[in-house]
Amino acid sequence: MSLVPLKDDLPSFLYQYLPAAAAGNASQKPFVTLTYAQSLDSRISKGKGLRTTISHPETKTMTHYLRYKHDAIMIGCGTALADDPGLNCKWAPAGKTSSTSSSPRPVIIDPQGKWDFEGSKMQQLFREDAGKPPVIVVRDLGSILKRHPDATYVSAPSSPAGRFDWLTLMLLLKSEFGFESIMVEGGALVINQLLSRPDVVDSLIVTVGAKYLGSEGVEVSPPVGEVNLRNVQWWRGTVDTVMGAKLDSR
Amino acid sequence: MSLVPLKDDLPSFLYQYLPAAAAGNASQKPFVTLTYAQSLDSRISKGKGLRTTISHPETKTMTHYLRYKHDAIMIGCGTALADDPGLNCKWAPAGKTSSTSSSPRPVIIDPQGKWDFEGSKMQQLFREDAGKPPVIVVRDLGSILKRHPDATYVSAPSSPAGRFDWLTLMLLLKSEFGFESIMVEGGALVINQLLSRPDVVDSLIVTVGAKYLGSEGVEVSPPVGEVNLRNVQWWRGTVDTVMGAKLDSR
Ligand SMILES: NC(=O)c1ccc[n+]([C@@H]2O[C@H](COP(=O)([O-])OP(=O)(O)OC[C@H]3O[C@@H](n4cnc5c(N)ncnc54)[C@H](OP(=O)(O)O)[C@@H]3O)[C@@H](O)[C@H]2O)c1
Ligand SMILES: NC(=O)c1ccc[n+]([C@@H]2O[C@H](COP(=O)([O-])OP(=O)(O)OC[C@H]3O[C@@H](n4cnc5c(N)ncnc54)[C@H](OP(=O)(O)O)[C@@H]3O)[C@@H](O)[C@H]2O)c1
Repeated sequence: MSLVPLKDDLPSFLYQYLPAAAAGNASQKPFVTLTYAQSLDSRISKGKGLRTTISHPETKTMTHYLRYKHDAIMIGCGTALADDPGLNCKWAPAGKTSSTSSSPRPVIIDPQGKWDFEGSKMQQLFREDAGKPPVIVVRDLGSILKRHPDATYVSAPSSPAGRFDWLTLMLLLKSEFGFESIMVEGGALVINQLLSRPDVVDSLIVTVGAKYLGSEGVEVSPPVGEVNLRNVQWWRGTVDTVMGAKLDSR
Repeated sequence: MSLVPLKDDLPSFLYQYLPAAAAGNASQKPFVTLTYAQSLDSRISKGKGLRTTISHPETKTMTHYLRYKHDAIMIGCGTALADDPGLNCKWAPAGKTSSTSSSPRPVIIDPQGKWDFEGSKMQQLFREDAGKPPVIVVRDLGSILKRHPDATYVSAPSSPAGRFDWLTLMLLLKSEFGFESIMVEGGALVINQLLSRPDVVDSLIVTVGAKYLGSEGVEVSPPVGEVNLRNVQWWRGTVDTVMGAKLDSR
């Protein structure tokens, strides 16, 4: 499915929230953009694995534009398992065509190696030369039974509960793979953790769709309580609005 | 506390969502506007009874402008008990001063008569000639022990579970009190029911504040699942956005 054109005023609206705006920063950490689409009632899906339309096709194009601007695209294994997403970039500047090289590298947070590259949409896109093969972050390389030859596995230190620390993880991804910028697309568990990490997240870009998905949906709401934002701007689309912001450090 | 000035472009933005736009409608039902302020994560308060700042002072002024445009302002007893709100209108057109007559009549949905007018902020405003006395909707007039002489009590038919039907209730309020327009300000339980009542609600005006209140907050999300909207418009404030919309009938 091809994309509708990118809205003219989106690039200038998004600029201050993108890695390019921070270029020249000699940080050890990659630039991290947290982005997702929610309903008014802060649901990012009707239910796990249920295909859900939240926003207008023009914000789907925005998502691909954002992917174009990042070296890597990260999701949790919950999203990989529920949605089997492609994660490639279909957008290209005028006069160019999208290609594997303009797609970000997928990064799957999968401590226990639950998700399988074999048979996935990502594998299909990789075979069609329309997407890069993923980096799969696991807890313990030795415990992963099936390692697919086209995927890259990397282990990261984790807490006794099996949780990676986000800052450590981002530093590792930059030093191991040279990612200067990482876009985090979800899902709920990943977003809810990162909302309280202003030391990790450089920008927040949230599409708010003009609908309710209802209390049974998959919810974004940080367990830590209040999270304040700064540098807030709103873009108005045909039916949705997009918020760009920075997480306020407490 | 006095209000900051009303933003110039708000009246024209709000116009299509206000009772005046429907004037001449010979409906038996009053015009019902559902309005509230939420965080990005769809919380309308940090916790029951916790004073919560969600939006910029300019949207507080908008709320008072909306109150000016309605005959009555309705809340559930949960909000009356938790927040002791004043519910009067402090806004007035240029050259005029706000007065009791420009304030809407408070309507409290209080089937079991839990809330007491005596000692409330509403009583204080009424005594200062700065607000009208409330209509309190109960299940059974006979069961209300303390009836305050300045408040008006009315009983409405209810289900065995003690719930009023919203359409019946609105019709009754128009026929008994002549209310042509009713603004519903909350709280969560009331909003969550009305979001699935396009036969009752004529307009929806939601302020979205650029912050998260966290998963322990009081949440708006309809229990019925997906709710679609139409006639959607977004207004951009200094830091917040306001959505105007109509509930789509399924
Ligand atoms: N609307 C949107 O923009 C959008 C975008 C993406 C996803 N979604 C939706 O989100 C839903 C999935 O969300 P979800 O919360 O179930 O899944 P998720 O956040 O994608 O993945 C959660 C899993 O990732 C692993 N993980 C997360 N944080 C970790 C950490 N700090 N350290 C180690 N591992 C960690 C855990 O795996 P283990 O359990 O194996 O330890 C965890 O169960 C789907 O319904 C999808 O459609 C929506
Ligand atoms: N941000 C905002 O815009 C905003 C606005 C207003 C309120 N709030 C917040 O909302 C919270 C309160 O919300 P809430 O859900 O607890 O209370 P609520 O919705 O104000 O009131 C709920 C109560 O109203 C009665 N009620 C509701 N629907 C009824 C029906 N169909 N028939 C009969 N009675 C009905 C019930 O009383 P009984 O239990 O006695 O049967 C119910 O417990 C507070 O924290 C307040 O700060 C926020």
